Amino acid sequence: MNSSSGIKGKKSTWDVPASDMARNTFNPIRDIVDSMRIQPNPEKELIALSIGDPTVFGNLKPSENIVDAVVHAVKTGTANGYGPSVGYVEAREAVARAYSDANAPVEAKDVILTSGCSGAIELVISVLANPGQNCLIPRPGFSIYETIALSLGVGVRRYNLLPDKDWEADVSHMESLIDDNTAFIIVNDPSNPCGSVYSKEHLQDILAVAERNKLPIMSDEIYADFVFPGEKYYNLASLTTEVPILACGGLTKRYLCPGWRTGWIIVHDRNNVFDKEVRDGLLRLSQRILGPNTLVQAAMKNILEETPQHFFDKTIEVVKNNAHHCYNRIKDIPGLTPVMPRGAMYMMIGIDIDRFPDFKDDLDFTRQLISEQSVLCLPGQCFKYPNFFRVVLTLPQNRTEDACDRIAEYCKQHYITENGKVSD
Amino acid sequence: MNSSSGIKGKKSTWDVPASDMARNTFNPIRDIVDSMRIQPNPEKELIALSIGDPTVFGNLKPSENIVDAVVHAVKTGTANGYGPSVGYVEAREAVARAYSDANAPVEAKDVILTSGCSGAIELVISVLANPGQNCLIPRPGFSIYETIALSLGVGVRRYNLLPDKDWEADVSHMESLIDDNTAFIIVNDPSNPCGSVYSKEHLQDILAVAERNKLPIMSDEIYADFVFPGEKYYNLASLTTEVPILACGGLTKRYLCPGWRTGWIIVHDRNNVFDKEVRDGLLRLSQRILGPNTLVQAAMKNILEETPQHFFDKTIEVVKNNAHHCYNRIKDIPGLTPVMPRGAMYMMIGIDIDRFPDFKDDLDFTRQLISEQSVLCLPGQCFKYPNFFRVVLTLPQNRTEDACDRIAEYCKQHYITENGKVSD
Repeated sequence: MNSSSGIKGKKSTWDVPASDMARNTFNPIRDIVDSMRIQPNPEKELIALSIGDPTVFGNLKPSENIVDAVVHAVKTGTANGYGPSVGYVEAREAVARAYSDANAPVEAKDVILTSGCSGAIELVISVLANPGQNCLIPRPGFSIYETIALSLGVGVRRYNLLPDKDWEADVSHMESLIDDNTAFIIVNDPSNPCGSVYSKEHLQDILAVAERNKLPIMSDEIYADFVFPGEKYYNLASLTTEVPILACGGLTKRYLCPGWRTGWIIVHDRNNVFDKEVRDGLLRLSQRILGPNTLVQAAMKNILEETPQHFFDKTIEVVKNNAHHCYNRIKDIPGLTPVMPRGAMYMMIGIDIDRFPDFKDDLDFTRQLISEQSVLCLPGQCFKYPNFFRVVLTLPQNRTEDACDRIAEYCKQHYITENGKVSD
Repeated sequence: MNSSSGIKGKKSTWDVPASDMARNTFNPIRDIVDSMRIQPNPEKELIALSIGDPTVFGNLKPSENIVDAVVHAVKTGTANGYGPSVGYVEAREAVARAYSDANAPVEAKDVILTSGCSGAIELVISVLANPGQNCLIPRPGFSIYETIALSLGVGVRRYNLLPDKDWEADVSHMESLIDDNTAFIIVNDPSNPCGSVYSKEHLQDILAVAERNKLPIMSDEIYADFVFPGEKYYNLASLTTEVPILACGGLTKRYLCPGWRTGWIIVHDRNNVFDKEVRDGLLRLSQRILGPNTLVQAAMKNILEETPQHFFDKTIEVVKNNAHHCYNRIKDIPGLTPVMPRGAMYMMIGIDIDRFPDFKDDLDFTRQLISEQSVLCLPGQCFKYPNFFRVVLTLPQNRTEDACDRIAEYCKQHYITENGKVSD
């Protein structure tokens, strides 16, 4: 053996560092939630308004046709083999039919199936930016954009959403953040954590920023169509003939199956801007993953085409009723300011922290809420938006009501008036 | 609006390049297979000996208990929500029990579930190397190592496997490739594309290289236990007390469900080398993906603990019978040299290309084989090993026999003897 050639790289001790990518992969919610692992009040049953998973409370389950379609796929055994890395063509056709719009037509070739919507987000960020570039993300916003971007060495710049304007984006702030290294803009409508649903006009304003600056948009549409009665959801791509958009979606929220990890990217590109490199890049990157679970892919046509409207209506009704109850109850609590959502599954509630001298900030407020009232909410810091907290609106209504009562009691005990007087 | 701040990054035309990562993601098989999309002989039905998917021929299906367990998970509806990013603890415990060894004990904390074995490989390469470093990979070898490494900017150096020694690694060549930038060594046993199964002594030789150079090993064990009767599979980690190993496995091959995308990483680290950073790095990286499909996770305990031995025996018997038939038939074909496998699902066959003047190389040989005989095999170039081709051994035996007959006829027509004489 040529041992001398082995010696050149020889180390004398075991020292195996993790890569920079691993070190830079950071879920900001994780540390915050870890720091919230404190003992709830043993006299009160825990109510978790923290988990953005509509299935955990048992009141919301996938429609019967969905269960049957997946069972059928398992039993027939025709979907056990490797699928194409971009997904079965039948499943991609079904996504194309379901999300095509007269003003933004979609074909199977425009659809790439991914392992959950976070898989779609990862693929899109991976294809659109190099290390050292940056993307614009909403504040408050869902943490996965930042987690994935930073892991790839891509910077983030946060544009403000305005609570006084139903969480519309501050488009001049957005535009002011753009520099030569900006690769794309992330838009999330309907929004996690805000529950906002943007008007056509506002989406057009955002598109105008992208068009002026020739920046593509990654549109996180995991809550597409998840809007309250009377509200209208606009498909962002249907409002532009210019701006190329990579839309990320999935079955997760609307079809109540987050664990199934079935998402997609839809390529909207009417001027063939992505033809040059991005479509091919997405295809290449999909080959690192080899597509999502084929059993769900085989059921996709049924899921997207046979799920009855009343199934969606029921979910929305649960969320809307919780939103109304929660909003009406909390708006009358001194020191708290809820912002009424129009869709998705969340509400943000502002804390007038100066009126709560017992608490330093939103993290402190939500930590103590667990310990005293056994109510678990995510502090705004999880979404880079301090002095707010987020509540989830998918619980059975009586649990939501209990939680609101406890939040009211909690605030009453800690609130002081402007003159420093304790409220009772 | 502050339009001046928008102007600073303003571009005048739409020009959206793909990232370097996307450009560097390259599946070498894809281009080769694309170039093989030629018309088969219309008078002969196509036989595809090219696809490493045991489910496509219909003769091999998951065991009944597996189907029932997944159906149960779908119907009960208890596994629809988000799982932990590293997987359900019950599923991790089941993997730990199934793959624990007296000399290499595994606990649930050592297991991370991933989206297929390629997801495991991606996570391991991502955590162990930075851009600019390199890893050692086998030649011939499975292309995904290179695809993922290069996409991350990690270089590959190929150590030779020796066909005359049943594809054992040339360990001195392996060691000669190590330099200061080498981050880890990839070992694949049993091997795709070779079907080799290494002896205890040979694995110890490989471990000695890793130990001398203080390099961790990524062990691709997707074909663990997939060995012919009379052969013995050694768990690499059971043969060392020193070398830290990240083993990649999955349900894919042994349980006949590649499309389900359920894999895992097992952390073997008896001296806590990975405790410093790598375990935490794996956990962080797992949060980009959020684990594999929960329906299969929920069935994992049943799959790993209730699948009857005769199910595995049947698969192995199909492969072994094909291997014996194929080997015995092909070893008598002038110009071809098969290397008998001991496990996995493949055989490599050498081409004495000088005796086939009609063909430039293995790609030419396999292309023409499609066009004349409608038999599809992957050329050795797909595995960076020219003048060989790989055959898959999971077909119904009569198809394998037909394919061998056609290969014999093909060679007879194109072979010339040493003196330049046509063989008939």
